Amino acid sequence: MRILVTGAAGFIGSNLTDALLAAGHQVVGYDNISTGMPRFLDGARAHPRFTLVQADLLDMPALSAAMAGIDAVFHLAANADVRFGTQHPRRDLEQNAIVTQNVLEAMRAQGVTRILFSSTGSVYGEASIFPTPEDAPFPVQTSLYGMSKVAAEGLLSAYAEGFGFHATVFRFVSILGPRYTHGHVFDFAKRLLADPSLLPVLGDGKQQKSYLHVDDCVAAMLLALDRAPAPFAIYNLGQDHWCRVNDSIGWITAEMGVAPRLEYSGGVRGWVGDSPFIFLDCSRMRALGWTPRVTIEDGVRQTLRWLLANRWALDQRA
Amino acid sequence: MRILVTGAAGFIGSNLTDALLAAGHQVVGYDNISTGMPRFLDGARAHPRFTLVQADLLDMPALSAAMAGIDAVFHLAANADVRFGTQHPRRDLEQNAIVTQNVLEAMRAQGVTRILFSSTGSVYGEASIFPTPEDAPFPVQTSLYGMSKVAAEGLLSAYAEGFGFHATVFRFVSILGPRYTHGHVFDFAKRLLADPSLLPVLGDGKQQKSYLHVDDCVAAMLLALDRAPAPFAIYNLGQDHWCRVNDSIGWITAEMGVAPRLEYSGGVRGWVGDSPFIFLDCSRMRALGWTPRVTIEDGVRQTLRWLLANRWALDQRA
Repeated sequence: MRILVTGAAGFIGSNLTDALLAAGHQVVGYDNISTGMPRFLDGARAHPRFTLVQADLLDMPALSAAMAGIDAVFHLAANADVRFGTQHPRRDLEQNAIVTQNVLEAMRAQGVTRILFSSTGSVYGEASIFPTPEDAPFPVQTSLYGMSKVAAEGLLSAYAEGFGFHATVFRFVSILGPRYTHGHVFDFAKRLLADPSLLPVLGDGKQQKSYLHVDDCVAAMLLALDRAPAPFAIYNLGQDHWCRVNDSIGWITAEMGVAPRLEYSGGVRGWVGDSPFIFLDCSRMRALGWTPRVTIEDGVRQTLRWLLANRWALDQRA
Repeated sequence: MRILVTGAAGFIGSNLTDALLAAGHQVVGYDNISTGMPRFLDGARAHPRFTLVQADLLDMPALSAAMAGIDAVFHLAANADVRFGTQHPRRDLEQNAIVTQNVLEAMRAQGVTRILFSSTGSVYGEASIFPTPEDAPFPVQTSLYGMSKVAAEGLLSAYAEGFGFHATVFRFVSILGPRYTHGHVFDFAKRLLADPSLLPVLGDGKQQKSYLHVDDCVAAMLLALDRAPAPFAIYNLGQDHWCRVNDSIGWITAEMGVAPRLEYSGGVRGWVGDSPFIFLDCSRMRALGWTPRVTIEDGVRQTLRWLLANRWALDQRA
């Protein structure tokens, strides 16, 4: 198939691109390289079945042109940082909802109808059921990020209903693994490299999190490309176990051989709008034939090793 | 209080404006008069405590200026026609989500934090529980309209969480009563005035609907202004009984003294994205002290009588 991947230079997008190429697909990567990293596509760019379109998803002519002849779209481009929504309140709606409608409209203009989309477990807000199933009680959105992803999901399902699209939504937990560029392992590694004696921790360290390795995430996405039913389906993607932030700190400090003093900011949330616990019921995706392979501990340790071996990645961002 | 009402020249907005003035409030009506009707504000305009700002909600300077000194905002302006979403796919996101963020940003700029918002029972998509409670299973959006209202609700709750707003969301069933300007009673009356012998009916006529009278709707909104808790609450607003479209046809034809042949388009949905049955559990609003007074039958009959006495309203729209 000829597949367009938005956000192809991002963490998950570049891993997905490599996996699609390895599976024999043609891939058109679409990325504005605003938060993506060109180096993540070094392997893909050497591949004859890969093309990169460096353009913005707000640029409709470029997007429509890139969509010609495409069989399926993985739409991964997003403002992916849930934390700083209140510092730029309009960004989430623009980057996650309007941009998603641009992708859908470009598809419609070119007669493309198959789309797979990366949503988030943050859409469950402060869930009341754990592990949280896809049909959990209608949540109250606690972040602009979650709001914008719910809007994007609704765009996909409305296009499935109204325009005959075949749409698949993935609600991710936080993803770990090679090319990971933001999140707690990144922040902790950077802090500990700067000062191994002290580690400031947002919240009380007891926040429960369920991280998934990017290889398992990508495996699920490829499987869903084959098997997710039309017109519309939603799949949680996560692990069937969870850890506390403190567990992760233990693995990270052990890997780095440091013993910092831990300084907790306190409270049960890391930041305004943080979900204290994201733990998803992934039985629907497992029923498609998917089993995650990498434990959370191995995922955290692998991520840290990759960051330590790729210090340039740590230096790219604040 | 000094209250800004967006969509003040609309069906619900003008009824709400009259009720707020009668309750002793100052009202700033904000409307671009695109679908609103200036005549609906004839009474209000004669009132010393009423001001009309004729401007668009995409006009941020006008909106911010209007927001100065406001104590509470009823945000009712919307693209309110769920039916034609697929004919202009971008309109819902713009008119219902982006515009809502404009209202919230104008409030933030002026230090206003109290907002009440008209959402819709359409956000439940094809509900699986009847009557449907506010925390029904996480729905799949079947219309662009529903998607855009879910996004707007999420904006309100995210601003409540992130910016200290006090936000209240109403999820309406279809509303009936004086100044009603679109929906099945409007369509049927118009058809039967043109040709009393034949009435085309979308779907199979068995669609179940629960209509609320605008006086009951407005009473709930005024009560919630006083009593809805901070930071965020959602209230279904509907009747505790329902009718079928065929029941309504019976009341309408009886009122008009006509006996048309009924021509059904067939199928269980009136249009793509139509919810075959919207019937809401309103016990949460009732617990605030609210009881609807007008039955669905009386609501349909009153609406029809108003339309027949105000033929100009029937001529305003296609």
